Amino acid sequence: MRTFRLVISCPDRVGIVAKVSNFLASHNGWITEASHHSDNLSGWFFMRHEIRADSLPFGIEAFREAFAPIAEEFSMDWRITDTAQKKRVVLMASRESHCLADLLHRWHSDELDCEISCVISNHDDLRSMVEWHGIPYYHVPVNPQDKEPAFAEVSRLVKYHDAEVVVLARYMQILPPELCREFAHKVINIHHSFLPSFVGAKPYHQASLRGVKLIGATCHYVTEELDAGPIIEQDVVRVSHSDSIEDMVRFGRDVEKMVLARGLRYHLEDRVLVHGNKTVVF
Amino acid sequence: MRTFRLVISCPDRVGIVAKVSNFLASHNGWITEASHHSDNLSGWFFMRHEIRADSLPFGIEAFREAFAPIAEEFSMDWRITDTAQKKRVVLMASRESHCLADLLHRWHSDELDCEISCVISNHDDLRSMVEWHGIPYYHVPVNPQDKEPAFAEVSRLVKYHDAEVVVLARYMQILPPELCREFAHKVINIHHSFLPSFVGAKPYHQASLRGVKLIGATCHYVTEELDAGPIIEQDVVRVSHSDSIEDMVRFGRDVEKMVLARGLRYHLEDRVLVHGNKTVVF
Amino acid sequence: MRTFRLVISCPDRVGIVAKVSNFLASHNGWITEASHHSDNLSGWFFMRHEIRADSLPFGIEAFREAFAPIAEEFSMDWRITDTAQKKRVVLMASRESHCLADLLHRWHSDELDCEISCVISNHDDLRSMVEWHGIPYYHVPVNPQDKEPAFAEVSRLVKYHDAEVVVLARYMQILPPELCREFAHKVINIHHSFLPSFVGAKPYHQASLRGVKLIGATCHYVTEELDAGPIIEQDVVRVSHSDSIEDMVRFGRDVEKMVLARGLRYHLEDRVLVHGNKTVVF
Amino acid sequence: MRTFRLVISCPDRVGIVAKVSNFLASHNGWITEASHHSDNLSGWFFMRHEIRADSLPFGIEAFREAFAPIAEEFSMDWRITDTAQKKRVVLMASRESHCLADLLHRWHSDELDCEISCVISNHDDLRSMVEWHGIPYYHVPVNPQDKEPAFAEVSRLVKYHDAEVVVLARYMQILPPELCREFAHKVINIHHSFLPSFVGAKPYHQASLRGVKLIGATCHYVTEELDAGPIIEQDVVRVSHSDSIEDMVRFGRDVEKMVLARGLRYHLEDRVLVHGNKTVVF
Repeated sequence: MRTFRLVISCPDRVGIVAKVSNFLASHNGWITEASHHSDNLSGWFFMRHEIRADSLPFGIEAFREAFAPIAEEFSMDWRITDTAQKKRVVLMASRESHCLADLLHRWHSDELDCEISCVISNHDDLRSMVEWHGIPYYHVPVNPQDKEPAFAEVSRLVKYHDAEVVVLARYMQILPPELCREFAHKVINIHHSFLPSFVGAKPYHQASLRGVKLIGATCHYVTEELDAGPIIEQDVVRVSHSDSIEDMVRFGRDVEKMVLARGLRYHLEDRVLVHGNKTVVF
Repeated sequence: MRTFRLVISCPDRVGIVAKVSNFLASHNGWITEASHHSDNLSGWFFMRHEIRADSLPFGIEAFREAFAPIAEEFSMDWRITDTAQKKRVVLMASRESHCLADLLHRWHSDELDCEISCVISNHDDLRSMVEWHGIPYYHVPVNPQDKEPAFAEVSRLVKYHDAEVVVLARYMQILPPELCREFAHKVINIHHSFLPSFVGAKPYHQASLRGVKLIGATCHYVTEELDAGPIIEQDVVRVSHSDSIEDMVRFGRDVEKMVLARGLRYHLEDRVLVHGNKTVVF
Repeated sequence: MRTFRLVISCPDRVGIVAKVSNFLASHNGWITEASHHSDNLSGWFFMRHEIRADSLPFGIEAFREAFAPIAEEFSMDWRITDTAQKKRVVLMASRESHCLADLLHRWHSDELDCEISCVISNHDDLRSMVEWHGIPYYHVPVNPQDKEPAFAEVSRLVKYHDAEVVVLARYMQILPPELCREFAHKVINIHHSFLPSFVGAKPYHQASLRGVKLIGATCHYVTEELDAGPIIEQDVVRVSHSDSIEDMVRFGRDVEKMVLARGLRYHLEDRVLVHGNKTVVF
Repeated sequence: MRTFRLVISCPDRVGIVAKVSNFLASHNGWITEASHHSDNLSGWFFMRHEIRADSLPFGIEAFREAFAPIAEEFSMDWRITDTAQKKRVVLMASRESHCLADLLHRWHSDELDCEISCVISNHDDLRSMVEWHGIPYYHVPVNPQDKEPAFAEVSRLVKYHDAEVVVLARYMQILPPELCREFAHKVINIHHSFLPSFVGAKPYHQASLRGVKLIGATCHYVTEELDAGPIIEQDVVRVSHSDSIEDMVRFGRDVEKMVLARGLRYHLEDRVLVHGNKTVVF
């Protein structure tokens, strides 16, 4: 069922819901899902509607025009998307395949509603798996002495494919600040720890050293500060003294791929609203 | 902060949200929480608003009158409650104290927003614990040969205290059908299994025999059919071959008290909407 | 690291551990993992040792001979396995690919320590995915009017490949009783509910009708009675009123594949000891 | 059933299990529970046996003497305890009662096998609750300008009651280093975050600021470095954008009391073996 998704953030005040729902009702809009959140601390209001496209008398462009005055009146940061327009996704990976294979299978079996434009990797190991899915594979090696050319090529490819989302599916390179800024709130990473614990390299080793009883994974938007961007989704799994670091890595893989798949899905369904360094996930 | 809670179920159609939010906005109502759900299968619509009482120009009676025409127009099953009016709760227990002690402590520490009118038990064991909290304790023994007088007394006490909710906090007697009908959707039970598995007596023994790897608890409204009423909340905990039935009982106690406390809280906050044999929990 | 796994069940009595650990110590056996369980109800004792193969002065055959007298003395049901001998696994599936793809990826990335001899399916849909992994694919259609020839062919293939384990990775046919008996404790199924709730067909529909707040999956050995065999592993995921049956099916897929992968892993590592209709999972 | 618990840590080498189980078998010891762990990284071996006291021909003193040569041979760090000797516990709290009430109820209902010698608090608020249980209550106010006299009094009370365990059940003062050293591995704290995230004050505020999607609690031994001691147990609960800091505090209370109760139980049952800054929990 084709729907439009109307996603709004604005300063909170009386009458927003009435105005928006009146607008929708006056055009006979059939709302299939509605979510609201008032944040008391920030005084900000968040809202997401999913509306049957065939219940409305106009298309997305006319919707945009008709809604613009309301958006202006309430100083809304807003967008409307059309589920008929699949989002274009670029996946990036290195050598470990678990997150990439998981996302590819979800896409292949129509669980993940998007286009996968291409996969970019700093290694050539996963080419055959990707190409079996009929997806272009770009091997862009990163020279540790001079990473700049590689990231210029990554930037070129992302733009060439007109990607709306870039997913770092265990891509083991740190994106340069320019790229983080250029694609702000568009790059989704999976970090293999329960952030803010164990930022940076080898989090399972850090977790083992600290003797924690649960390990986790965190899906977040990439920002210039390492592993510090807005968190979309997290989960954990229980470990014990009998689990070696190798066991933790193995358990962790399952958490990583689940958390990344959920986080990406929320993003693709326009469920994630970023405000400051936090997210509202409807 | 005092709020009014407007809780609505009705057949789904275009314009409900607009009508309700317009009504609220036209009276300057400050919505602190709003939840909606359209059930595709049943074609039913559910809605809950929490509104700051001090933002409205009238009290709850005037609200009721003003809103009645809208309710009629949309054939709403609805109620409005005032958080300044604490709900009156009757707790019932037998010998095991974990659920009762847990609820009493939550009430005593102001976590549970209600009045506890009294505790009724078929044993006298828990009197001192209850009376320490300053709550009346009624010992109503149940004669296995003739249970009718006991349940007549229970019914009398519930009515005498004008209870809006009766909580069976591990009360080990089955309520007679008349009581179930009389207090429909007002009696909350905690069953010590993950329903619909292990209905009836000794669920942990049944679970041990079947060799399940998780055990659970279910909070539900009591209906005439044993352990078959609408489910409010459930949870589980992992067990293994090394856990004896006694261990399961012990683990189970923690799940029971958590699930019951959450379920009761949802009910007290008017978050539970019953439709057929299912619940919407906002 | 190559290890031998010594797995024992026997009537409980004093001295078993001493006898076994003496035997191992007298041959200089380096124990890397040891697990014991005394079941009070059944009076049965269970034990599993993992021993470095290179610490022992003999191979598995000589071990078997040397240990036989002890096994006889204590009436042990026992086996010893060598991690250098990968178990041969036959996978069976129908049209849904999530469990199959998950197991294939774990095998492909060396997480699952086994040989996958072949995949048998009653449909031809998943051939390409399987053959990309270099694994033979047998399409054995099942005629609803006469299922016997299909199951005769399945039996022939399992024997031809000398399979030690058959995994029903969402194979949507019920195995005939003869096959269940023939391959007792060798056929692992994933059922898409938290057993014993929702036995049989369409468990997610049953779960939705009952209004449960958690759904689950169960990995178990197949026996003649449908969905009633010894449970190896289970897990659940939270759902709410806002989740449609389609959502439940989607959430369920993730639980199913995790639970099946864990259950199969336990089996491959000789961690599962069946006693009556229950399992000990070390 | 009265048991002896034999708890051992020592450098790993061949023959430890054989020696210990031979010793037990030669005295006809009936082992009801046995756990082993070899830590590859540290080369250390850990072992715990629970043995029926009535199966042995001698008491705990004679056991100690008889076992001493084996302990010496393998350089064991070891202890044997008798379940007939309940451990003496001192509880400490401040104003918040949830952890204290939970532990008192578990003790009162015979779930927690220990003596509670007394409760020490820097406030007088919880006196009545404690005294209802028949337990002495000491109000030891802490002068922020000069905390030394208060902690001298705490130390005196702990020694006077000959406490084997001190539990900080949301005691909101930091113990001075001398006390941490004096009672090393004897003071158990509950920290209201999933350590190592959010060390120190107001962890729920820190969690809210960071926008995490799960919050947790950690039970650990107190060491001189704040919130950095060996972790015994941890758990988490899911939160969302719609949960205020007050909601987090409320959810957190339930996790805190469960995690503390489990951690304390493991300690009382001699299941926790500390090695460096990590624990083995059998």
